[in-house]
Amino acid sequence: MLADKAAIVGIGATEFSKESGRSELQLAAECVIDALADAGIDPAEVDGISTFKSDNNPESEVHRVIGGKALKFFSRVDYGGGAACGVVMQAAMAIATGVCEVAVVYRAFNERSQYRYGSGASHKTPAHNYDGATRAWGGVHGLVSPASNVAMSATRYMYEYGATSEDFGRYCVLARKYAATNPKAWFYQKPITLDDHQNSRWIVEPLRLLDCCQESDGGVALVITSVERARTLKQTPALIRAVAQGSCDDQHTMTSYYRENIAHLPEMKLVADQLWAMSHLSPSDMQYATIYDHFSPYVFQQLEALGYCGMGQAKDFIREGHLELDGSLPTNTHGGQLGEAYIHGVNGIAEAVRQIRGTSCNQVKRVQHAVVTAGTGVPTSGLILGQL
Amino acid sequence: MLADKAAIVGIGATEFSKESGRSELQLAAECVIDALADAGIDPAEVDGISTFKSDNNPESEVHRVIGGKALKFFSRVDYGGGAACGVVMQAAMAIATGVCEVAVVYRAFNERSQYRYGSGASHKTPAHNYDGATRAWGGVHGLVSPASNVAMSATRYMYEYGATSEDFGRYCVLARKYAATNPKAWFYQKPITLDDHQNSRWIVEPLRLLDCCQESDGGVALVITSVERARTLKQTPALIRAVAQGSCDDQHTMTSYYRENIAHLPEMKLVADQLWAMSHLSPSDMQYATIYDHFSPYVFQQLEALGYCGMGQAKDFIREGHLELDGSLPTNTHGGQLGEAYIHGVNGIAEAVRQIRGTSCNQVKRVQHAVVTAGTGVPTSGLILGQL
Repeated sequence: MLADKAAIVGIGATEFSKESGRSELQLAAECVIDALADAGIDPAEVDGISTFKSDNNPESEVHRVIGGKALKFFSRVDYGGGAACGVVMQAAMAIATGVCEVAVVYRAFNERSQYRYGSGASHKTPAHNYDGATRAWGGVHGLVSPASNVAMSATRYMYEYGATSEDFGRYCVLARKYAATNPKAWFYQKPITLDDHQNSRWIVEPLRLLDCCQESDGGVALVITSVERARTLKQTPALIRAVAQGSCDDQHTMTSYYRENIAHLPEMKLVADQLWAMSHLSPSDMQYATIYDHFSPYVFQQLEALGYCGMGQAKDFIREGHLELDGSLPTNTHGGQLGEAYIHGVNGIAEAVRQIRGTSCNQVKRVQHAVVTAGTGVPTSGLILGQL
Repeated sequence: MLADKAAIVGIGATEFSKESGRSELQLAAECVIDALADAGIDPAEVDGISTFKSDNNPESEVHRVIGGKALKFFSRVDYGGGAACGVVMQAAMAIATGVCEVAVVYRAFNERSQYRYGSGASHKTPAHNYDGATRAWGGVHGLVSPASNVAMSATRYMYEYGATSEDFGRYCVLARKYAATNPKAWFYQKPITLDDHQNSRWIVEPLRLLDCCQESDGGVALVITSVERARTLKQTPALIRAVAQGSCDDQHTMTSYYRENIAHLPEMKLVADQLWAMSHLSPSDMQYATIYDHFSPYVFQQLEALGYCGMGQAKDFIREGHLELDGSLPTNTHGGQLGEAYIHGVNGIAEAVRQIRGTSCNQVKRVQHAVVTAGTGVPTSGLILGQL
């Protein structure tokens, strides 16, 4: 009942940098206005906004500063990058139920110059609540940053399936190859070799520096409206064929270590099952994928959760070239969060829209359908876009 | 397209106290399990959760500890008590679009023993973001607590319309009268007189101690499912006839002082307009109202925004007894947040459900429809419940 009801009709972004030099509210307003201009919709028409729980920009304030009038829908989705497709689901639900007519979703932050998520929580006083207790408990065991959390799963994955650091490196080299030809990417014209990857320092073994996504300042916004309205607008619409969230099986936030097997992502499997069911499509129907890449090993586990290969076989799938531009599933052609920027996955949705439009700087031929995933290791989300 | 698609089929709560003596996660789990037992639904069936952005209990963790299996929908709504009906809208949308089948919403906190919202932000270092900047700007002008923010609007309201502290007191006396006969209320068996109100100390002029809601520890949860499922369950369903959010007209969070008139609530008018349109009902069709009462003057402005009287006339409406049990609009029969507890408005939704069921301790005769509002002075929400 949510399939094929709404479409992404505008995408917008600021530049991606390491120090934006301006407020996060400014970044949010800029990317939202850019996305509305791309769609050809007046900001006064925006009557719905959804963003990440962790975004510091109140949606009512973003609405006010862009020149909005009446805001009839506003919401948040939690779990960091796990929210990326969840906010699109929010917008699609609001459009499908007639709650609003023009919805905007955004993520805008000075993640590099103000916060540095990657530096972890070791220097912070834990809050007196569930999150604080969880972090404190992990902290005394050395789990003080996202990389250290993910290293646990990556280590087990290597042990279970014989994956190596070189295997992870092959994905990183590909992401940076795509970034090298994307003028918006931070690592534009800066490809790496597998040797570069293997020679990069450990962040937390088995994660090397080049396995970890960037830390970035910037904002990305999407405009979402009804299919009927989408037909009248200037851009080729990216129809939301399916969108889903998932949390399951003794789920924790980055620390689901009590599962019987910590080398896979059941929450992404739950998302994938819903996406295929809702869209009546299968993995082989996709001509493009954005796979959330905060840390390279999770790209492997996601390909398996989505059904592109069996457990532990992603290393072969990637080695065989399936993610290349001429492969069966060209992936992260913007350079991913390793190569373009870390905007909590919303930049990867924008790239999927460009692939549907046919306007990516690394364009795949004839993209009928694209699958997108959100942050992993946390309650997450995913979506399928298609031609209208 | 959202009207009449979902129903509230279970309500649950912890006791309301000033010091719960246990974690907020425990409170959340208790009230959710209580609501599911009330509905007669197994916790393993819960596949959707929405809560307040400000709630410290991750929905995935609440889902885990109650014994949930697959969570397919999770979201947050911002703006403190303004979220109260917004989370119900989230659940209704998810049910209406088939995203989930059994949704739970909750608000659980140790607001009195851990945080004390009422004590304000004066002792906190402002964060380097929009909220921090706004609070810092207000702070240097003496706006250091919710009461001080609301005092600005209340003062203007009195100046514009001739309302007095005694007028505000008449609402407070009524709320405490209802609380006095509600065994769950903190102020059970503790009614006040208008003299008590007038003799209570200033918090921020023109707000006296007895104009301000309590600070409370506790949790309240609601279970929401489809109309079809609701028909099969053991409780009389409270059908969600309409639900809406609103933010507009130079909206700020508690500090919308740049409006031409700060003595009214245009965001609640925006919510009300949507409620009446969506439900095809009018103010006179309601036999009960829960009006969000963190500070008594906002009850007056809300009655006007909802259309029960003209601007400035709420003092007469209340003096004439319309909010009494035998009046035209019995209101806050649980005692409101002044008398029962401050659970960010979710306890007021539970009371509206009881009125629809016919099980309130201060039961109104034959409640066919009930209107509920959420927190004011912020982007807000409202809903209309009805008999199935």
